[in-house]
Amino acid sequence: MTYERTHLKTMQGYTPGVQPDTPVIKLNTNENPYPPGAAAVHALSTLSAEMLQRYPDPLAAAFRASAAGLHHLAPENVIATNGGDELLRLALTTFLDPGKPLGLLTPSYSLYGVLATIHGSPVANVPLGDGWSVPDHTAERWNAAGAPLAIITNPHAPSGALLSAARLEALADAFRGVLLVDEAYVDFVDPKIGYATPALVVSYPNVLLLRSLSKGYSLAGLRLAYGLGAEDLIAPMLSKTKDSYNVDAVAQAVGAAALQDARSASASWEAVRHERETLARALNALGLTCPPSQANFLLATVPEGGLWQSAETLYRSLMTQRIYVRWFDEDRLRDKLRITIGSPEEGEHLVKALRLIAGLK
Amino acid sequence: MTYERTHLKTMQGYTPGVQPDTPVIKLNTNENPYPPGAAAVHALSTLSAEMLQRYPDPLAAAFRASAAGLHHLAPENVIATNGGDELLRLALTTFLDPGKPLGLLTPSYSLYGVLATIHGSPVANVPLGDGWSVPDHTAERWNAAGAPLAIITNPHAPSGALLSAARLEALADAFRGVLLVDEAYVDFVDPKIGYATPALVVSYPNVLLLRSLSKGYSLAGLRLAYGLGAEDLIAPMLSKTKDSYNVDAVAQAVGAAALQDARSASASWEAVRHERETLARALNALGLTCPPSQANFLLATVPEGGLWQSAETLYRSLMTQRIYVRWFDEDRLRDKLRITIGSPEEGEHLVKALRLIAGLK
Repeated sequence: MTYERTHLKTMQGYTPGVQPDTPVIKLNTNENPYPPGAAAVHALSTLSAEMLQRYPDPLAAAFRASAAGLHHLAPENVIATNGGDELLRLALTTFLDPGKPLGLLTPSYSLYGVLATIHGSPVANVPLGDGWSVPDHTAERWNAAGAPLAIITNPHAPSGALLSAARLEALADAFRGVLLVDEAYVDFVDPKIGYATPALVVSYPNVLLLRSLSKGYSLAGLRLAYGLGAEDLIAPMLSKTKDSYNVDAVAQAVGAAALQDARSASASWEAVRHERETLARALNALGLTCPPSQANFLLATVPEGGLWQSAETLYRSLMTQRIYVRWFDEDRLRDKLRITIGSPEEGEHLVKALRLIAGLK
Repeated sequence: MTYERTHLKTMQGYTPGVQPDTPVIKLNTNENPYPPGAAAVHALSTLSAEMLQRYPDPLAAAFRASAAGLHHLAPENVIATNGGDELLRLALTTFLDPGKPLGLLTPSYSLYGVLATIHGSPVANVPLGDGWSVPDHTAERWNAAGAPLAIITNPHAPSGALLSAARLEALADAFRGVLLVDEAYVDFVDPKIGYATPALVVSYPNVLLLRSLSKGYSLAGLRLAYGLGAEDLIAPMLSKTKDSYNVDAVAQAVGAAALQDARSASASWEAVRHERETLARALNALGLTCPPSQANFLLATVPEGGLWQSAETLYRSLMTQRIYVRWFDEDRLRDKLRITIGSPEEGEHLVKALRLIAGLK
């Protein structure tokens, strides 16, 4: 006797990257190698037990004010969520009737498809082009499928490719549904590019941006993200579909402090960008080709039958060296490894291990 | 242009009790008046920034082991959730097809109906009898409606009435779907009654118990609860329908410590029970009749046209005295106030304010 809903019985849940207990070089789940900023650490140290005794602010007003201040928006344009996953789920709950398709680009974060399955919706997949480019007429294809909601990851995961803000605007213009832009990795975009999207939510009633404190602010353990959008997009999630007290008091306090001290975090972004270049050069020199990435990871192609046999073999060999990276058993990704940018020391260890496994001096 | 799903447009979200900023006597959202126990406070003080840098354990193994140990169950019988609200939502997502009815007893926690509306399900309401008793044939009525899931609050909210474990077993036996027993207030049940339900999950494949650390462990701000059930009930929520990292690292660490130190918390339960008797006597003496409660609140009937005019008037008058209680604009509850058991001092302030408002000496 099972009570599980029929459509769930055969589905596979999302498999998060391994979270090993013992110390390893952990380059598999895109965490920031640097600790949280001084203000966040201070906020953490001043937490009191009394603060935990009472329910938190259900609307996370102080945190939303911090986020609004940072992006020159109003608090009504902001919703705080228990990690980015919650915002993704809330978008489906709020904007997508079960049975209607979710617009996606593939490959991408595999959780999107899992969420669609749980929700009882098919996906309208548009395959990414060469170099992980977003094809022309993507919006038109989602429109033709009747998708009321689509998700795009920008910078893209797992490649790190960035769609320009101008092309994003064109996509939002042409798409008839809500365009959720998952910007979990946006803090690592080179500032010289001038990619800035928060103002889009004022001009585009259908753009919903996802920002996360997990990577950029080194707070993955805290589970805190936020959505930016027109008030009409934010309000139904804030007042109807989210759980009543979705973000705890600790996350609200530490998160607000972290955003007010974005300068601290931005030092880590700069260091990650620097190491991204160093590591990309080293991997390319070894024949593990990486396209340019604007995120805190690289997607390296492992030549089949070459020095490391295959990406899967290399993934497992690195694990025996206590180095964790991510391998996806998915079309177009099976010959690649996604490698999180760690510290320079971790990068050196990785390169040394790659040479060792290949039998190079 | 709105993008919200049609069935959400007209719905009202759940309205949590007011969380005032300024110091007041807060007897409106059933928090524990005593601080968290020593072990939880210690765990909070030893949190490190490094702990927040990495993703938390997606399955909350250490916390689940603590809960399993406390209840003499296996970790496979436990799921940790971001507050009880998440478990409620997950039960709908996992066991209830949209369109199929959710079995409820009314009146009860109004969030249940809100969750059904969001989900796109009607409710199969069975009205509680006199003294908030669960009517005979409740399970049969849910079965007749075709409900795959039903929720019962035990002790009942907002009355505090307790259904015996024997009657709960009979209900689970007769009901064909999943019976979710919301035991958010169970820690305040008089131990002399011998109400003990965790073992039911071994004998009944359809019983899912909700336990919360918000009230019993004074950790409402932390957002932490857990479900207990047969492995077949827990597994699909754990591996498919919950958000990947649903409980943050702080809640996992502080929560595990709190459960291992249930003795500390139980001192607060005993104090709350003592004050519950004292306050009930005082309210009954004033003509504000309260039925016996096994929860950390009392449901007082305000005689219409009596000393305080009406429950709504009294609710507002108390607010001007900076005392917050809860009034529900709902059938069978409009002449009543739900009053959280606070400290003895808060109880004395309340009684003094009640006399003052009534013009009594």
